[in-house]
Amino acid sequence: MTLAHHRLTFATDGQSLRDITAPIATWVAEQGVDSGLLSVFLQHTSASLVIQENADPDVLRDLETFFRRLVPEAADYRHSAEGPDDMPAHLRAAVLPTQLTVPVSGGRLALGTWQAIYLYEHRRAPHRRTVVLSLIGA
Amino acid sequence: MTLAHHRLTFATDGQSLRDITAPIATWVAEQGVDSGLLSVFLQHTSASLVIQENADPDVLRDLETFFRRLVPEAADYRHSAEGPDDMPAHLRAAVLPTQLTVPVSGGRLALGTWQAIYLYEHRRAPHRRTVVLSLIGA
Amino acid sequence: MTLAHHRLTFATDGQSLRDITAPIATWVAEQGVDSGLLSVFLQHTSASLVIQENADPDVLRDLETFFRRLVPEAADYRHSAEGPDDMPAHLRAAVLPTQLTVPVSGGRLALGTWQAIYLYEHRRAPHRRTVVLSLIGA
Repeated sequence: MTLAHHRLTFATDGQSLRDITAPIATWVAEQGVDSGLLSVFLQHTSASLVIQENADPDVLRDLETFFRRLVPEAADYRHSAEGPDDMPAHLRAAVLPTQLTVPVSGGRLALGTWQAIYLYEHRRAPHRRTVVLSLIGA
Repeated sequence: MTLAHHRLTFATDGQSLRDITAPIATWVAEQGVDSGLLSVFLQHTSASLVIQENADPDVLRDLETFFRRLVPEAADYRHSAEGPDDMPAHLRAAVLPTQLTVPVSGGRLALGTWQAIYLYEHRRAPHRRTVVLSLIGA
Repeated sequence: MTLAHHRLTFATDGQSLRDITAPIATWVAEQGVDSGLLSVFLQHTSASLVIQENADPDVLRDLETFFRRLVPEAADYRHSAEGPDDMPAHLRAAVLPTQLTVPVSGGRLALGTWQAIYLYEHRRAPHRRTVVLSLIGA
């Protein structure tokens, strides 16, 4: 049984979801682990990791529309030092996952047919976001 | 230290929560692992895994009522190919967990007294749902 | 590779977030594990574990204000045996995490610069809350 960590960094460009399944799967394949568990951990409090459908991009647009209504920018937040999207980003990040654990079987991520792993940026301005991958297995 | 995977499949019948603690606990007990970690991973984007109270079924009814209000079917979704419950199911699945990690101690799930693991179906029509169990330990 | 469990118990005093990063990090440091994964599991269905910003306490106040609006006490809940904050606490606990997995690298939690782990009490009355820590690594 071995355990390996790896960091991936992504440049984001505004509130949207980016499919990061491929770079994650590539690193997992390189580790030569047949059976294991992968932890995906996001080191930020204003972005999220979400598993969602990989087929219809309208799902991602509806998701962003839903969160703009659920967590409006026009509210009386105390924490607003970085602008009107600052506290809404923290609220989205509280409600959505910061971390995912995915089984690895036969050397591959055991995702369902329609599942992809997304990095969801909640801030309007571009950011650099770091994801820590940890793979345990044999 | 060993790692084992197992798949459980459940037939669902409309929007409701099903207690799947027993079949999960049975498989864990069969593995002969005294101390470990169990990952429970759902391979779908329109259902969820939720840990909730195991005593009063009214908690589950109130949970479903809450989500019908939080994620209404009567909204202007772009993604609606499979009907009015299609996109609301994806939104519930984004907000609720797809994956859980539970400690195993003394050969048993270290759940609290009032905790059960539920499979939460978000679609109106019956579905088959697959859960991947991964147990690491010794 | 070893696996160790530990229980931490906290006394809470009403609806608020408490930073529990330090006692978790202290226990992890004592285990002598350089590289691993830490699971943090809460054994309750009316409190949550949340990773949020560690700098501005206003973030925590805005979070509590948001959840009071999202999950109002004045609703027609079936489950109300323990008072008006009973079912809202279960709803918050469904939407927010019960469990977190955090990488351990160089003997330390691989949290981002601004991340802390909070125990979020959802009930008005004081409670005792148990968190199970499980560290796997070498």
